[in-house]
Amino acid sequence: MPKNIKSRNPKPRTSGQLGSLADPADQPLPVLPRFGPGGNALAVDANKKKANLHRLRRIEGQIRGVHDMVQQDRYCADILIQIAAVQKSLSGVARQLLANHVKHCVAHGIRVGGAQADAACDELLKLISHLDH
Amino acid sequence: MPKNIKSRNPKPRTSGQLGSLADPADQPLPVLPRFGPGGNALAVDANKKKANLHRLRRIEGQIRGVHDMVQQDRYCADILIQIAAVQKSLSGVARQLLANHVKHCVAHGIRVGGAQADAACDELLKLISHLDH
Amino acid sequence: MPKNIKSRNPKPRTSGQLGSLADPADQPLPVLPRFGPGGNALAVDANKKKANLHRLRRIEGQIRGVHDMVQQDRYCADILIQIAAVQKSLSGVARQLLANHVKHCVAHGIRVGGAQADAACDELLKLISHLDH
Amino acid sequence: MPKNIKSRNPKPRTSGQLGSLADPADQPLPVLPRFGPGGNALAVDANKKKANLHRLRRIEGQIRGVHDMVQQDRYCADILIQIAAVQKSLSGVARQLLANHVKHCVAHGIRVGGAQADAACDELLKLISHLDH
Repeated sequence: MPKNIKSRNPKPRTSGQLGSLADPADQPLPVLPRFGPGGNALAVDANKKKANLHRLRRIEGQIRGVHDMVQQDRYCADILIQIAAVQKSLSGVARQLLANHVKHCVAHGIRVGGAQADAACDELLKLISHLDH
Repeated sequence: MPKNIKSRNPKPRTSGQLGSLADPADQPLPVLPRFGPGGNALAVDANKKKANLHRLRRIEGQIRGVHDMVQQDRYCADILIQIAAVQKSLSGVARQLLANHVKHCVAHGIRVGGAQADAACDELLKLISHLDH
Repeated sequence: MPKNIKSRNPKPRTSGQLGSLADPADQPLPVLPRFGPGGNALAVDANKKKANLHRLRRIEGQIRGVHDMVQQDRYCADILIQIAAVQKSLSGVARQLLANHVKHCVAHGIRVGGAQADAACDELLKLISHLDH
Repeated sequence: MPKNIKSRNPKPRTSGQLGSLADPADQPLPVLPRFGPGGNALAVDANKKKANLHRLRRIEGQIRGVHDMVQQDRYCADILIQIAAVQKSLSGVARQLLANHVKHCVAHGIRVGGAQADAACDELLKLISHLDH
C-alpha cells in the first residue's frame, strides 16, 4: 500500500492521477489521490459504482417528479408515496456505500490500528446514527 | 367550498380544467380538479408550496452532487454525510406535506364521515409507516 | 356522546363530572374519567387492548432477557438482534395505539373543530415525528 | 488472548465454564466461554455494562408503566409519548452495544482477516439495517 494513503490533504489533487501525462520537470512525483475525509474512497467496485450512479440519476428524476407534483397541487398522499419511494431508493444507495465503507475504509483503519482504528470506528458509529435505514 | 370538492372519481375530470371547451350553457361553472388519489390536494398554502418547491430544487442539486461524488470515487463517509443531509431535507418536505395532509385532506375525510373517514385514517396510517422520519 | 368528553382539565375529576345529575345521597354511579392528555382514551377496542397488554407483558420479558444477556457478557450481536426484536414488537404496539388515536381521539378533535381540531392535528404530527416506525 | 477466543462453535461449550469439574491433569486451564454468535462478547467495559444494566432495569419499569396505562385506558397520545421515550432509551443501549461490537468484535474479525473479516462486516451491516436509530 502506498505510503501516502494515510495523508489527509485539505483539497484533492486532481493532477495526481494524470501525473504520467504531465511534464516530469514540473511535477516530479505522481501523486495518488489521498484516502479519507475530503479525499477518496479506498476501493470501489466498478459494477456497484455503475449501479449507484444509475440509481442516483433515477432518484434525481424522481425528485423532479415530486417537484412537478407539488407544483401542480397534486394530492398530498400521492406525493408522500413518491417521497417514501425516493427515501427507499436513497437508503439503498446509502446501504451499498456503507457496506463498501465498512469493508474497505473502516477495515483499513482498523488494520492500521491505534488512533486511526478509533477514528474509523467513531466515524462509522456517527454515520450510522445519522442515516435513515 | 365547491360541491364537487368531495368527489373521489377514479379518473381525473380533465373537462374541469378545460372549461372553456365545454358548452357554457351546460356547464356554467369552471370545475375544479377533483380531490383525492390521482387528483389534487384539498388546500395548499402558497408560502409553504413555494418553500417546498425551493427545497426540492435544492435536493435535486444535492442528489446531482452525490452523483458527482460517486463518479469521482470520493471518500464513502463524505458521500454518506451528504446522503444523510438529503434524507433530512426530504423528511422536512415530507413532514410539511404530511401536516398539510392531516390538517386538510384527512380532516376533510373525517368530517365527511363513514367510509371516507375510515379510508382517510387508513391511508394516513399506511403513509406514516412508509415514511422515514 | 357525553358533553364532558371535550373537557381537558389538568387533573382527572374523579369526583364526578356527572355529579350534578346524580343523587348526591347515593352518588352511586361510577364517574367517567375525562378524555385527553392526563386523562383517558376516547374509545378502546377490548380485543385490541387485550392483545396489546399481552404484547407488553411479552416485551417486558424480552427486556429482562436482554438484561440477562448483558449481565452474562453475551455476544453483542446476539444482544442487538434481541433489541431489534423488542424494537419491532414495541413499534407494533405503537402502531396499533396510533391507529386507535387517529380513528378516535384525532377524529373527535377534528369533528369538534376550531382550536381543538388544530391541537389534535399538531399533537398527532408531533407524535409521528417522535416515534420509531 | 486465549487461543479458543476465535472459535465459532454452533453450541456454547458449557464445559468451559465448568472447568473445576474436569480432570485438572487433562485440562489444566479453565476454558473461557467462546467468542461469537451463541457465545460471549470479546471485551466488555465494566462501567458501560453497569450503565446498560441500569438502563435496562429502568426500561423494564417503563414497559410495566406502559402496560398499566393501557390497562387503565389512558389517553393514547400519553401512552405513545411513553413508548417514544422507551424507544429512545432502548436505542441508547443499542448504540452503546453497537459501539462496543464495532470496536471489539468487528475489529477482531477484521484483524483475523479472510472469511472471518467478511462475516464480521456482513453481520454488522445486517444489524445496522435491523436496528432503529
